Amino acid sequence: MSPLVGESTLPPRKVTTLTQNAVIDLLGVLAYGELTAFDRLAEDARMAPTTAGRAALATMAAAEMGHYKLLCDRLAELDADPEKAMSPFTAPIDSFHDSTRPSTWLEGLVKAYVGDSLAADFYREVANFLDDSTRTLVLSVLADTGHASFAVREVRAAILADPAIGGRLALWARRLVGEAMTQSQRVIAERDQLAELLITGTGDLAGVGELLNRITTAHTERMGQLGLSS
Amino acid sequence: MSPLVGESTLPPRKVTTLTQNAVIDLLGVLAYGELTAFDRLAEDARMAPTTAGRAALATMAAAEMGHYKLLCDRLAELDADPEKAMSPFTAPIDSFHDSTRPSTWLEGLVKAYVGDSLAADFYREVANFLDDSTRTLVLSVLADTGHASFAVREVRAAILADPAIGGRLALWARRLVGEAMTQSQRVIAERDQLAELLITGTGDLAGVGELLNRITTAHTERMGQLGLSS
Repeated sequence: MSPLVGESTLPPRKVTTLTQNAVIDLLGVLAYGELTAFDRLAEDARMAPTTAGRAALATMAAAEMGHYKLLCDRLAELDADPEKAMSPFTAPIDSFHDSTRPSTWLEGLVKAYVGDSLAADFYREVANFLDDSTRTLVLSVLADTGHASFAVREVRAAILADPAIGGRLALWARRLVGEAMTQSQRVIAERDQLAELLITGTGDLAGVGELLNRITTAHTERMGQLGLSS
Repeated sequence: MSPLVGESTLPPRKVTTLTQNAVIDLLGVLAYGELTAFDRLAEDARMAPTTAGRAALATMAAAEMGHYKLLCDRLAELDADPEKAMSPFTAPIDSFHDSTRPSTWLEGLVKAYVGDSLAADFYREVANFLDDSTRTLVLSVLADTGHASFAVREVRAAILADPAIGGRLALWARRLVGEAMTQSQRVIAERDQLAELLITGTGDLAGVGELLNRITTAHTERMGQLGLSS
């Protein structure tokens, strides 16, 4: 199948033409996201209170590099240079991480869980607009590396032991979402082809609104699972 | 095969009885070594001058976690708790890393190459004293993850561009070796079963001396490959 043409069998999200540039953009932002996820998990691993916790996070970080490799291989198949494909996204993703540096083990877990889940929900929606083989790849690299249940368990236990922690972490999560929105808007404003992909894929601006609604609802549910108010 | 009995087919390094405790010690120190190697490579990745260099180091870090898992699985087979098996070695290994924190990308590469190679040579020697299945495992986790040739290439290119770098890195490498010796002696002084394994395995104290000679010779050769005087 030509990567130039994306056909979805799921109406109403049918896109008949999708430029290869938008696919390269998407693979690029995902790849750089994996590389920074590796970094962040590796950094958080060092804050772990136990060697077992540290090894658990380091193992998840390692899994991200497996995803990274799949994305780079796919970019190479499309004759795209991975480094070039990632470059438009390094500044906004780095800004997000620099302005939301966790200062505790629990903040790191909440950031990884809330942030990765939000991003994954968004990419899963976008995957619906892609050709079959790219969609399959995107869905596979979004597979949870075991981090979610680990984070939920640790955060719930900490709140149970000290309920005051819950309030502070809820504020932290709100700050994360705000910062993620700021940087996403920045990316989409600068990358016309990604904006077009979103609007064409969802049908129209109202479709984009519904997509954001679905993502927000899922986020609220996850906050509840952590024991936090959203 | 019982893990309590180690038989080597390679004379004169034949050991007929090897306590399970020494094997658990060895797997424990290797496992914690892999976990810190992950950390160190992940940290160094952040100093990389290019995204490609950063991804290369992060990929190597990820490979260390694969080794870590193999060692923990083996410890579990021996009914040993990985966390407990690692605990006698966390302080000396952490001390080594704390006192040899690289301040540049090149120092990080030299440390990883020189340090990992020294450790690998030592463990390969010790592997000769182990039962077949443990020896095979130890040799497999010592397999180079591609770091060596990457480090040699980068360091040689840097020295070619600015020969003064060579002198500074040679001093750095000497400091690394000194610190590694200090911490190894500390470990062996505290773990009687490891000291016994070494002496019984090599035959006598003269055998230990020959082992150290082989390791030092290999180190000198590697320094030459990097373009550094040892």
